[in-house]
Amino acid sequence: MIDFRSDTFTRPTPGMLQAMLNAKVGDDVFGEDPSVNKLEAILADYFGKEAALYCPSGTMSNQIAIKVHTLPGDEVVCSDLAHVYIYEGGGIAFNAGAQTRPIIGDRGMITAEQVEAAINPDDVHKARTSLVCLENTSNRGGGCCYDWKEIEKIAAVCRKHSLALHLDGARLFNALVATGQDPKVYGQTFDSISVCLNKGMGCPMGSVLLGSKAFIKEARRIRKKLGGGLRQAGYMAATGIYAMENNIARLADDHAHARQIADTLLTRSFVANMLPVDTNILIFEVNGGWTPVSFVEYLKQHDILVTAISPTQIRLVTHLDITPEMTAKTCSVIAAMS
Amino acid sequence: MIDFRSDTFTRPTPGMLQAMLNAKVGDDVFGEDPSVNKLEAILADYFGKEAALYCPSGTMSNQIAIKVHTLPGDEVVCSDLAHVYIYEGGGIAFNAGAQTRPIIGDRGMITAEQVEAAINPDDVHKARTSLVCLENTSNRGGGCCYDWKEIEKIAAVCRKHSLALHLDGARLFNALVATGQDPKVYGQTFDSISVCLNKGMGCPMGSVLLGSKAFIKEARRIRKKLGGGLRQAGYMAATGIYAMENNIARLADDHAHARQIADTLLTRSFVANMLPVDTNILIFEVNGGWTPVSFVEYLKQHDILVTAISPTQIRLVTHLDITPEMTAKTCSVIAAMS
Amino acid sequence: MIDFRSDTFTRPTPGMLQAMLNAKVGDDVFGEDPSVNKLEAILADYFGKEAALYCPSGTMSNQIAIKVHTLPGDEVVCSDLAHVYIYEGGGIAFNAGAQTRPIIGDRGMITAEQVEAAINPDDVHKARTSLVCLENTSNRGGGCCYDWKEIEKIAAVCRKHSLALHLDGARLFNALVATGQDPKVYGQTFDSISVCLNKGMGCPMGSVLLGSKAFIKEARRIRKKLGGGLRQAGYMAATGIYAMENNIARLADDHAHARQIADTLLTRSFVANMLPVDTNILIFEVNGGWTPVSFVEYLKQHDILVTAISPTQIRLVTHLDITPEMTAKTCSVIAAMS
Amino acid sequence: MIDFRSDTFTRPTPGMLQAMLNAKVGDDVFGEDPSVNKLEAILADYFGKEAALYCPSGTMSNQIAIKVHTLPGDEVVCSDLAHVYIYEGGGIAFNAGAQTRPIIGDRGMITAEQVEAAINPDDVHKARTSLVCLENTSNRGGGCCYDWKEIEKIAAVCRKHSLALHLDGARLFNALVATGQDPKVYGQTFDSISVCLNKGMGCPMGSVLLGSKAFIKEARRIRKKLGGGLRQAGYMAATGIYAMENNIARLADDHAHARQIADTLLTRSFVANMLPVDTNILIFEVNGGWTPVSFVEYLKQHDILVTAISPTQIRLVTHLDITPEMTAKTCSVIAAMS
Repeated sequence: MIDFRSDTFTRPTPGMLQAMLNAKVGDDVFGEDPSVNKLEAILADYFGKEAALYCPSGTMSNQIAIKVHTLPGDEVVCSDLAHVYIYEGGGIAFNAGAQTRPIIGDRGMITAEQVEAAINPDDVHKARTSLVCLENTSNRGGGCCYDWKEIEKIAAVCRKHSLALHLDGARLFNALVATGQDPKVYGQTFDSISVCLNKGMGCPMGSVLLGSKAFIKEARRIRKKLGGGLRQAGYMAATGIYAMENNIARLADDHAHARQIADTLLTRSFVANMLPVDTNILIFEVNGGWTPVSFVEYLKQHDILVTAISPTQIRLVTHLDITPEMTAKTCSVIAAMS
Repeated sequence: MIDFRSDTFTRPTPGMLQAMLNAKVGDDVFGEDPSVNKLEAILADYFGKEAALYCPSGTMSNQIAIKVHTLPGDEVVCSDLAHVYIYEGGGIAFNAGAQTRPIIGDRGMITAEQVEAAINPDDVHKARTSLVCLENTSNRGGGCCYDWKEIEKIAAVCRKHSLALHLDGARLFNALVATGQDPKVYGQTFDSISVCLNKGMGCPMGSVLLGSKAFIKEARRIRKKLGGGLRQAGYMAATGIYAMENNIARLADDHAHARQIADTLLTRSFVANMLPVDTNILIFEVNGGWTPVSFVEYLKQHDILVTAISPTQIRLVTHLDITPEMTAKTCSVIAAMS
Repeated sequence: MIDFRSDTFTRPTPGMLQAMLNAKVGDDVFGEDPSVNKLEAILADYFGKEAALYCPSGTMSNQIAIKVHTLPGDEVVCSDLAHVYIYEGGGIAFNAGAQTRPIIGDRGMITAEQVEAAINPDDVHKARTSLVCLENTSNRGGGCCYDWKEIEKIAAVCRKHSLALHLDGARLFNALVATGQDPKVYGQTFDSISVCLNKGMGCPMGSVLLGSKAFIKEARRIRKKLGGGLRQAGYMAATGIYAMENNIARLADDHAHARQIADTLLTRSFVANMLPVDTNILIFEVNGGWTPVSFVEYLKQHDILVTAISPTQIRLVTHLDITPEMTAKTCSVIAAMS
Repeated sequence: MIDFRSDTFTRPTPGMLQAMLNAKVGDDVFGEDPSVNKLEAILADYFGKEAALYCPSGTMSNQIAIKVHTLPGDEVVCSDLAHVYIYEGGGIAFNAGAQTRPIIGDRGMITAEQVEAAINPDDVHKARTSLVCLENTSNRGGGCCYDWKEIEKIAAVCRKHSLALHLDGARLFNALVATGQDPKVYGQTFDSISVCLNKGMGCPMGSVLLGSKAFIKEARRIRKKLGGGLRQAGYMAATGIYAMENNIARLADDHAHARQIADTLLTRSFVANMLPVDTNILIFEVNGGWTPVSFVEYLKQHDILVTAISPTQIRLVTHLDITPEMTAKTCSVIAAMS
């Protein structure tokens, strides 16, 4: 099977498995796991942040960040397509007791003007706006990358109104590779960043949350309450260290594969409304007799797995386990469709 | 001052004050206040519901209902203009830990089709949709009344998907008077209804929540936790009994006053985008040199108070304390504007 | 019926009812109710606190205070008999998401040494201790008054460990009258105080929360979320103003009545383990063939209502509606029991 | 270093590491990880429960179970020494909004009589009692094993009052080995059980929650909200499979080591109040010039790590990484102390 359903399906490479096996470990709840400590230091340095916290999942990193930045009854501003809003089980309300103000943006990306208009006045009838969450790249927006100037404007709005600014960086490494940006400007601009080590980075699990020392100290408390304090987490953290050293630059290959498949799809008359392809995600619609369901089924019969993510849309994600050969085969299957 | 800022500013009439003074009271936390018990019985009978609960405010009635109908992490579907979402301090998240899925409707009214499309599938990534809240009349929608057929369709969607259906009836009596509907069809259609005794009904405070016996038993528990269990609440409840007997039919006068002022406004070239006037609320924009702020200020200098509810909109609400004379004076002031 | 079940059953006197009827009112959600504003000013001045907030009930005042002083997951230290812990429906966890550390004290009163020993170290495994709640007089402790020196020691422990200190003053006026203390030393010692206007003060409902300006601003936000924002609350607030002017000193009569009944009970051989009678509450056990249930039933047949508050204990509370004649009759009924 | 601080410090054996390396994995959020699925099936079968859920930590398993069994504002009955109450960061209140009723038992073990007395009546003033949590063995109670007859009585009380019964089985395998009990009687008696794969079982991380199908379906939803849904969790789950096959019976060695050290300690005159040693935990006090701090420090200078768990108590835990040689050395160091 060629599995384009998600980059969460990646499996470790032999090198990564060896790193896992060789990991030095300890009890991370007591701060004694050297691999976890090293991974946290690597990430903090990479983004120029004071401190970092290893978490079992990107969802937990995001939820902890939202919790630390808000009080119950506060309001979180984000895109109506934000992962934190639509794919984390209502966690913003469950974990933080905070209300979400979803903004209809462009492919999951919102503007500084929209953010400023969404801030509530100081009035007891209104939830207190205290946090803005961005997602870059935007998963549901087709892996698109924010215009950095817009992010800077949003950050300025946040500073002006004393709002915290969090980045869901589940696929931030894809954005960094696609744009060539310096990760440290992200560290300077956002109060907190969560990055995922699964997905394109290829680790079995794990995420890292970044912020100031005081923020991470509080985050560590919340992690324990949620049950995210692990013991010999170093086996998993070691895969993250390996990924930081080996798997970032190669994301360009995933992007090239996505581009190649997109180009093939665009030759087909039944493909419509494809979102711009900035990184490793394709989202498009089909017509001309095809439905998302029949399209998915057809590819499955050719050993290719993609997902219908809505009644009208199909999603295809490239990643570490997708080889040039698989890409070529997929293109030839698509090219033969009509 | 002629105060059109809100119908929450009404003051009791002499008859209502006398009813308050004569109230028989007891300790309602122990269920021994005869006036509270009588008011709850009157309302339950009026809407054909099994049971009722007196609450200090409409916000508390709504919040209790939402809490009883949901589990933390569930999702509540409502209009993006719903009072429960935008004017109750983020209470849905604060009190119930539930996430809100705001739907962009027509003047705060949503359709069965929109509701059905907003229901999440049974998937751990997704918050579980468990409640739909409607508001009739819609405050932020200019006091508009729902098309009853649409409500019936929404109720059918809720039954099909096992969702609870709650009505924020803060101004339900206005809708009943404007449409001539039988209140019992509301009782049959909604799982729970909150009505407000302040606003057009003219009581100093108080709201009643309606539902099944089991629902109200649980609601009574939640009311205690929130600190809404009162003692000799009968003084306030007695004003509610008085309002039920004396102040419903007269809401037609408020609607006529609103209509009269609307007709005058519509003669002015600087008035734009007035929402249809179904009941006692006018919402409109101004141009031609006027801004909401300057318009509000001008009327204030003529002893007339109205509110700028957004950077572009003005709201004016008629109620018990607005006499025909005040209405006439207001119309003449407006008629002289240019 | 002579009703000793609770001082929550008091009914307003004619003077208080007249004050209610004459109240000047406005919309308190907008801060425009003159009676509410006056009551809040009177209480703030009385205790020497910066600001005050009128709430529908003592439970809400307490719950708001606990919410403002804590973050979810924090720990609240109080007596295992504290009203906030055992009679507010689990509200500390429900509203604030905070954990309670109940301390076994003496009749609901705890010591500075116990408080200090209960403070958790700074460790992710442990809930963060952030608040100490005292109750004076202690309801479940038989209306007993704290030794002021112990309160001062507790306050010192709180300052040393940066904990907030809240007073549940549901019957604080009883303590003030019984001890002759200056209310302002309470205002200086506690970060927040809730007082009840029902109970011995004789109002139909209502409570006032006291604290700094910043604390009360936040408390006002929480009150709105809970649905405790009222409209023309002035009718009820006016009874509070009346009580502050007329009903404090007379609490000494309630205490004398309690003492008188206690002395009579102590002549009966079947009365055991009576808690010291400091104010208006008697708690005792019966034996010699009596059970709490049979004792309660016997008095009921003589038109006297008291409560069995546990399988072994009876409680009797004197208040505004208990006259010297009622007290004398009660004593003669008890004196005839064997 | 000979590390007796906790059995959470164990490191995988070579066999376990090999199992980890060879694991078959998939995306567990999609239910596609074969190792996770196998581990869950093994545990469900072992305890005779319908379903199981792999979680990152024992804290998360416990917290999820408590959340599923309760509503916000409910009350959880447990020992005042329960891990869920004192070592999970206030999680019961944070995650479930539930209040804890801690019972003072015997070394963390409570009786059916105590449980029944702690159940609140159906009264709005009272939190609704809905769950009883036991812990076996009891960590803070010195690894003691419950008398099974008492557990059966507690289960009967729970059935009688419709309460759920959860077992924190962080060290349940120790209890099973020490008592020779059939794990299936636990499955029949408890509504839910959490077991830890770290600690004596020697896995780097992980816990499994057991219950009915409906319970586990809901638990899976909560796990996602907390961020406990992992991806290729099979590497970690494979260590759990290995532990189930290889590391249960050998817990008897840990118990023998603990016994051996206890016997040596008991020859020392400065050792006092040692709790009965049922399994792998020793808790005792020191006097005769020793303090917990000086005792810990002395052993540290001899390369032996133990913990001062309170101002008066020392804890020592044996586990997989403690060899007979280490035990003998520790005994000889202790034997030389005076």
